[in-house]
Amino acid sequence: MVRRIREGEITAAEVVEACLARIDADEERVQAWEVIARDHARKQAEIADRARKRGAPLGSLHGVPVGIKDIFDTFDMPTQNGTPLHKDRQPRKDAAAVERLREAGAIILGKTVTTELAVYHPGKTRNPHNPAHTPGGSSSGSAAAVAAGMVPLALGTQTNGSVIRPASFCGVFGYKPSFGSISRRGCLMQSPSLDHPGVFAGTLEDAALMAESLMAYDAEDGAMRMRARPALRQAAVDTPPVPPMLAFCKTPVWDQADADTQAAFAELVEVLGDDVNELELPQSFNSVHEMHRVVMESDLARNFAREYERGRDQLSAKLVEMIERGQQERAVDYARAIDGARILNNVADGIFSDFDAIVTPATPGEAPHGLDATGNPTFCTIWTYTGMPAVSIPLFTGSNGLPIGVQLVAAHGDDARLMRTANWLIGKVNGAA
Amino acid sequence: MVRRIREGEITAAEVVEACLARIDADEERVQAWEVIARDHARKQAEIADRARKRGAPLGSLHGVPVGIKDIFDTFDMPTQNGTPLHKDRQPRKDAAAVERLREAGAIILGKTVTTELAVYHPGKTRNPHNPAHTPGGSSSGSAAAVAAGMVPLALGTQTNGSVIRPASFCGVFGYKPSFGSISRRGCLMQSPSLDHPGVFAGTLEDAALMAESLMAYDAEDGAMRMRARPALRQAAVDTPPVPPMLAFCKTPVWDQADADTQAAFAELVEVLGDDVNELELPQSFNSVHEMHRVVMESDLARNFAREYERGRDQLSAKLVEMIERGQQERAVDYARAIDGARILNNVADGIFSDFDAIVTPATPGEAPHGLDATGNPTFCTIWTYTGMPAVSIPLFTGSNGLPIGVQLVAAHGDDARLMRTANWLIGKVNGAA
Repeated sequence: MVRRIREGEITAAEVVEACLARIDADEERVQAWEVIARDHARKQAEIADRARKRGAPLGSLHGVPVGIKDIFDTFDMPTQNGTPLHKDRQPRKDAAAVERLREAGAIILGKTVTTELAVYHPGKTRNPHNPAHTPGGSSSGSAAAVAAGMVPLALGTQTNGSVIRPASFCGVFGYKPSFGSISRRGCLMQSPSLDHPGVFAGTLEDAALMAESLMAYDAEDGAMRMRARPALRQAAVDTPPVPPMLAFCKTPVWDQADADTQAAFAELVEVLGDDVNELELPQSFNSVHEMHRVVMESDLARNFAREYERGRDQLSAKLVEMIERGQQERAVDYARAIDGARILNNVADGIFSDFDAIVTPATPGEAPHGLDATGNPTFCTIWTYTGMPAVSIPLFTGSNGLPIGVQLVAAHGDDARLMRTANWLIGKVNGAA
Repeated sequence: MVRRIREGEITAAEVVEACLARIDADEERVQAWEVIARDHARKQAEIADRARKRGAPLGSLHGVPVGIKDIFDTFDMPTQNGTPLHKDRQPRKDAAAVERLREAGAIILGKTVTTELAVYHPGKTRNPHNPAHTPGGSSSGSAAAVAAGMVPLALGTQTNGSVIRPASFCGVFGYKPSFGSISRRGCLMQSPSLDHPGVFAGTLEDAALMAESLMAYDAEDGAMRMRARPALRQAAVDTPPVPPMLAFCKTPVWDQADADTQAAFAELVEVLGDDVNELELPQSFNSVHEMHRVVMESDLARNFAREYERGRDQLSAKLVEMIERGQQERAVDYARAIDGARILNNVADGIFSDFDAIVTPATPGEAPHGLDATGNPTFCTIWTYTGMPAVSIPLFTGSNGLPIGVQLVAAHGDDARLMRTANWLIGKVNGAA
């Protein structure tokens, strides 16, 4: 699409109208949006088209409409963080990630629905494949909007499973780059050690292009390091010089994978043949889920202290419970849990010297029936806690006809290899189909 | 001395013998050393002298004997951390800071006495100016050994006041570079957010030279950032292009400064005239001492958990008390206190846009009488917590004839300016004397 806009085959205005038409047709059923900025998007498209005509330099996402999870600040639209406590909150400045998107020429079409404060309590969004099922969370609207074809790209975040899980449930690509790759300035803070921005797209290449556009160093995000930006879009279309070696990893929560998923992985392992080995994670990974909980709940207690103190009657019972558990956590356990991520990355270095990537479930199975919960994030917890880059690839269909993602994970910082390996895996599975 | 060794005026062997002679004469009185590696030091000197004769490249500290605080691992000497629990502990590898010193050509003369686990409970060392007085802690032996002329340079650490305080009490230069400047790999960890390596020397230039030799990036110390090494030795002999502007800062603990110190500072402010303004720290600095305590005690509880669980009967009552308070701290308070340092550095940026450095007491006064405590670190707490670089300059003498240091502090990362400003201050005071 970027190429077609750039070469004048289609205009940004036409793309925006097409997106708005899809929204008109489907939004009542899907409910992906908190704010739809129709006229403002048309205005941005007009500016983008004029820029192209007069030969101005065009960014990597010139004229492409994107959806922004409603926890990233936008100076020109409200940012309400999925809670009535922040109703009509209007930031003065863009979040860093939104700045990067505008700088790349993207058109901000609107703000997508998030769960309450990006934790677990669902928003109004439904799964586009079957509106009686959850789209997953917390980046519910971003995943659903891309799945419904309302935007080609959307921005989300993951603190436990909030990119990979809704991508799996909605049948789109979801990509959470290595921890510290994308600035979180101006984004609602849940947990500074766990919060990862991530992207949704209909193809691997689009996801890679969007993420690459977002990876710019920002000294105000303490998790970032100055380093060269990886050529992700190129990697997502490259063929590896030698076939990659994958580790199929059931993880300590394999018993939570349903029959569909267990069968699909058995088949996948068969298709991959010599290119995959089963790998049991070292013992030290068994405590990740508990360490993740300690860090996340302590940080929720700290970062949502004001919401809890002034408005706990407007918070969900589940979030209040998490905050109250977090208030009781001890500093020694918290500090030890924070350190654990570094130690496990050192352990994982050994794994990634033998394997290009880990292949593992993204979710226990299809999106569950019902809209009162967002499904189980447990298959994402290890990779969020350790900050490894992960992508959910829509490869399977479950027995209810709903999509199921395959999660591919690489070593921390090895995002380009992850993209290249994902591209190879897609080719391999499609070739076998 | 480096120049004289380099040019062959004196040999490293002669320097080592001179140091050992001072140790023979004074060690019984001062008790600065845990390990004195006589023969091993002679051997190192022989190698250094041979290297010079055959024209090998010479490091920045070629042939210079140094003392190492006994919490830095050394592969060729025990590292006992000031506790009977670690008696005869023999590391297999050098700490990163020791590696850097050896690489620069320094001769490791031995290990200097530290307080218990580098916290507050004193070791055997006495103040060389009067052995009935404390040398300060926790880098007691390093400060005393330099003050007694037993070594020209020594390595220490500061988690509250453990470089600046003993330097002030012993009448030597003590310099704690910006947080994250020197690797702590292989050094006893008390608190990853507060631990700073630092140096002791008889002159500002020597302190700068040693610190510069130690500042090498190490990816294994998460607090370090890749950046150019500042030219500290040059800065320590430079004249500022325009006279610096100093802020005399009494800090919220000024009422703990004794009469000697209050009088000395009144005199110093007079000597400096237009080059100094009194500055009151913003309100937000009033809670630093409590935030520092929360972080330090939580981290002691965490990092000395094994010592506490297996050997608390061999820990001092004071340390047990700190650990037990630390065990009760809450994660939310700890995380908030860790973040506070960053916020205060942002506040301080405003101060350092008007002033080159802050001048403030290093200690409440002279070294107190008695060897059962190491004195009060309170005047160091703010600058340790915020990670700003600080130097103690031996400018005053108290009413008992013991030295008192003046502490100079610069903005985080502005170590070269600190050295240059310190050089200017010394010249100004000496010119007035």
